[in-house]
Amino acid sequence: MRGTMQDVPLSIADLVRYGTSVHGEASAITWTGDEPRRSSYAHTGRRAAQLAHALRELGVTADQRVATFQWNNQEHFEVYLAVPAMGAVLHTLNIRLPADQISYIANHAEDYVVVVDASLLPLFAPLLPQMSTVRHVIVAGGDPGDLAADGVTVHRYEDLIAGRSTEFAWPRVDERDAAAMCYTSGTTGNPKGVVYSHRSIWLHSMQVCMSDGQGLSQADLTLAVVPMFHAMSWGLPYASLMVGASVLLPDRFLQPAPLADMLVAERPTLAAAVPTIWQGLLHELDQNPRDISSLRRVLVGGSACPPEVMRAFEERYGVPVLHAWGMTETSPLGSVAHPPAGVSDEQRWSYRLSQGRLPASVQGRIVGPDGLPAPNDGESVGELEVRGPWVTGGYYRDEDPAKFDDGWLRTGDVGTLSPDGFLRLTDRAKDVIKSGGEWISSVELENQVMAHPAVAEAAVIAVPDPKWDERPLVAVVVKEGHKVDAAQLRSFLAEKLPRWQLPEHWSFIEEVPKTSVGKFDKKVLRQRHTDGKLDVVDL
Amino acid sequence: MRGTMQDVPLSIADLVRYGTSVHGEASAITWTGDEPRRSSYAHTGRRAAQLAHALRELGVTADQRVATFQWNNQEHFEVYLAVPAMGAVLHTLNIRLPADQISYIANHAEDYVVVVDASLLPLFAPLLPQMSTVRHVIVAGGDPGDLAADGVTVHRYEDLIAGRSTEFAWPRVDERDAAAMCYTSGTTGNPKGVVYSHRSIWLHSMQVCMSDGQGLSQADLTLAVVPMFHAMSWGLPYASLMVGASVLLPDRFLQPAPLADMLVAERPTLAAAVPTIWQGLLHELDQNPRDISSLRRVLVGGSACPPEVMRAFEERYGVPVLHAWGMTETSPLGSVAHPPAGVSDEQRWSYRLSQGRLPASVQGRIVGPDGLPAPNDGESVGELEVRGPWVTGGYYRDEDPAKFDDGWLRTGDVGTLSPDGFLRLTDRAKDVIKSGGEWISSVELENQVMAHPAVAEAAVIAVPDPKWDERPLVAVVVKEGHKVDAAQLRSFLAEKLPRWQLPEHWSFIEEVPKTSVGKFDKKVLRQRHTDGKLDVVDL
Repeated sequence: MRGTMQDVPLSIADLVRYGTSVHGEASAITWTGDEPRRSSYAHTGRRAAQLAHALRELGVTADQRVATFQWNNQEHFEVYLAVPAMGAVLHTLNIRLPADQISYIANHAEDYVVVVDASLLPLFAPLLPQMSTVRHVIVAGGDPGDLAADGVTVHRYEDLIAGRSTEFAWPRVDERDAAAMCYTSGTTGNPKGVVYSHRSIWLHSMQVCMSDGQGLSQADLTLAVVPMFHAMSWGLPYASLMVGASVLLPDRFLQPAPLADMLVAERPTLAAAVPTIWQGLLHELDQNPRDISSLRRVLVGGSACPPEVMRAFEERYGVPVLHAWGMTETSPLGSVAHPPAGVSDEQRWSYRLSQGRLPASVQGRIVGPDGLPAPNDGESVGELEVRGPWVTGGYYRDEDPAKFDDGWLRTGDVGTLSPDGFLRLTDRAKDVIKSGGEWISSVELENQVMAHPAVAEAAVIAVPDPKWDERPLVAVVVKEGHKVDAAQLRSFLAEKLPRWQLPEHWSFIEEVPKTSVGKFDKKVLRQRHTDGKLDVVDL
Repeated sequence: MRGTMQDVPLSIADLVRYGTSVHGEASAITWTGDEPRRSSYAHTGRRAAQLAHALRELGVTADQRVATFQWNNQEHFEVYLAVPAMGAVLHTLNIRLPADQISYIANHAEDYVVVVDASLLPLFAPLLPQMSTVRHVIVAGGDPGDLAADGVTVHRYEDLIAGRSTEFAWPRVDERDAAAMCYTSGTTGNPKGVVYSHRSIWLHSMQVCMSDGQGLSQADLTLAVVPMFHAMSWGLPYASLMVGASVLLPDRFLQPAPLADMLVAERPTLAAAVPTIWQGLLHELDQNPRDISSLRRVLVGGSACPPEVMRAFEERYGVPVLHAWGMTETSPLGSVAHPPAGVSDEQRWSYRLSQGRLPASVQGRIVGPDGLPAPNDGESVGELEVRGPWVTGGYYRDEDPAKFDDGWLRTGDVGTLSPDGFLRLTDRAKDVIKSGGEWISSVELENQVMAHPAVAEAAVIAVPDPKWDERPLVAVVVKEGHKVDAAQLRSFLAEKLPRWQLPEHWSFIEEVPKTSVGKFDKKVLRQRHTDGKLDVVDL
């Protein structure tokens, strides 16, 4: 028999209706370096309706993709509201990717409209001629200047929406229809598009507001440093609409000093960013102390946060840093590191430094080197696979069965799951060194090498080995004014690691190559090694 | 285009799997008057699997209804886990209803199995012969004694599950399938069955755990006084499984003294009950002070909580009382009265005394005396109608279009909705007095009369009037040792109410009749008036 419950689809339109009426007094605040721009959610909703009318007129009548090439600001938020609510698909372009990837992604998604910040035009203008499906560009926050391309009409955002009706009859959608999409830059092959549904965004927003999620409430003002093109700013814009939390949008002012100024001026209760931002902010605060006591908590994700940064925020500023794990493919909220109630202080730190506990909606399992699910015993190491209503089951127009395992997403992250659901990641699957049927974590090896006082940075990659399949190669950046050689480093490690893990291959380099989001780019290192461009010392 | 998200159904089976593994160390604690019974969620899960095997053997292979006739205790919790997870339908029978209603409900739902507490056998035994579809009775927590009926096999719970496998391959279900059902006793006609789906229970559980819902987290231990047969104990059992909150189950010990003892002994962080329970507890604490400081908050719903009770808990015990509104038809969580951030102390109390703010998932509107939606201006009075994924859109085998309005549920509650989404109820639609095209709130009139120092209780009903359609009749219970007459009461009201609202009809009675949940039973009063059994003074 069926339930008697109403068949009400979960939809962004309902989220927009609710957030901009019941929570019409909540605020979206955009930093400008000068006087912040403030808009109530009611006002934002009226402008989103105007934008939707304008897009209809430009021919956005079905599920066309409306892309954004924007910082976190008021107009980007308006596009977030208008596009999925009108039944079209929001596509957030990552402004930090290489030019060829951006145009590949825009063409693959068949973007029809792009909304661009005027401040990003120097970056965008050279890309536009490569975007073959784009017919309209809308420039927000300034003038289009001489932007032009064949077959493309350029509009000024404010001119386009001016004078239009501030109400829009948002259509009813199927909750499994596409609402938004985001491409992962990927480590092999072309970027892949994850398509969020109305259903997945609604459910994920609820999770963000759960006490054991990010605990977002009406009382919060969230500084969303994490870009709106980076896994939907971790779901904060839609979750904020769901409960009427206000948002503080930093626009292009992502340097430590203006971020510290925002904290003082607007007193947010919550802030979300990748570890490097928090490291930079900590350094800034140490130089120029400011009052950041408004923060109830700080969210960190994207990569593991150095423990000393977490401890510094908590011990010196009284602000708990909450570790979270997720990826574009998981909407992104996977796990959040709330320590269980009633544990000792030492245990508490062990839990806080983990990647966190998976919630009921995100099932996880560890698949070991033998390809079989391993026990959740906190010790068996393997690749994390996840499953759930806001986890992707495929990519847009891209079949890649290697990313899926019997309906589970292969995350590419390697680590353990404890019986109480806590995830501890040790490496990326592609970076782990498969040596003689055992796995060596490249990250753990790097941390051990970087503990040496003469080492500034160290990146470990796997290199082919006739006997052991793979062995680790350590690329080392020596600190200025220091000297150290491979034999010394190996001796240093010998005290800490089992003999079979000790690396024989060493390379001394000027700098570790980095990705667009500041992570070690081991793909580049591997390529250099393959091309014979890395000087290697073999012990 | 469609989203690429995985098509994972929201299901109680996944909730059970998650709650009993990741949160296997959470506790279900059942009060006994003596040493409490303690069971981990892991243990509870193993017993639920055993119960599922036993039920399969009894013939529960599809969507049969497995009813409960139980207090809030360990075995009831086990049935909550096992029955929906195995694909059958949990049907919680309200032990406090009149005998004929209980058997009507069991027959209407076609209950196949009933699980009964041994302590309730005196109440249950006379009902069993009237239950025509029941084939198996399982007696929990004691011996069946001489319980018997034609065609019914009687089992002892512990004997039935003993020795069975502690694992069960919970089947995959469609999320819109029935998971549980609960009948509303209704005010007119027969009781009506609301059928919750796996989807509605999952979504509702997320709401219970949202910061602006009930904020349930892993750190909570919840004293669930509200019965598991009363709108699923307000969703607490399933929400607790979702985040690993522990539960404290009071069994039959619902009197103020044992409840106070539980608070002291187990130190719950959260407790949920109807106002009369809190009034009784307050009285008990005033007589015999105890430490209830473990409570972070107290939930009250079912009917409006007297302001002095809310203030007493907050001011004398430091425990905030959180008003919530809902009904069986809304799963039940509708609104929760969290005051908005940044309001004055006075405003805060005004918000706290309201029925609360509707969340994004529960849309509300006010329909006025003219049958048209009225503005959400906090002033226009009308019937509340609601819509959402955990609001019922019908009843089990019962067509009653009068309860629905173009897809919205007519709640039967009368009041206002403010622009910021706060609900303030003034009456029930059936109790409101429709006098000359205006509505007089029976509840407000009762409160005004009860403010007179000689009045113990007062209940107001509408009586037919040739000129005004309806006029109020006030049934008054005078306090022992006091005297007052109708003219004196009317003069007392004249200072506070507009002239057209002053009642002409008065009746002095011994006691106001009450429903099974302790509310004024105005249906009985109306019947007495219709039958001419009420002595009326007309001024």
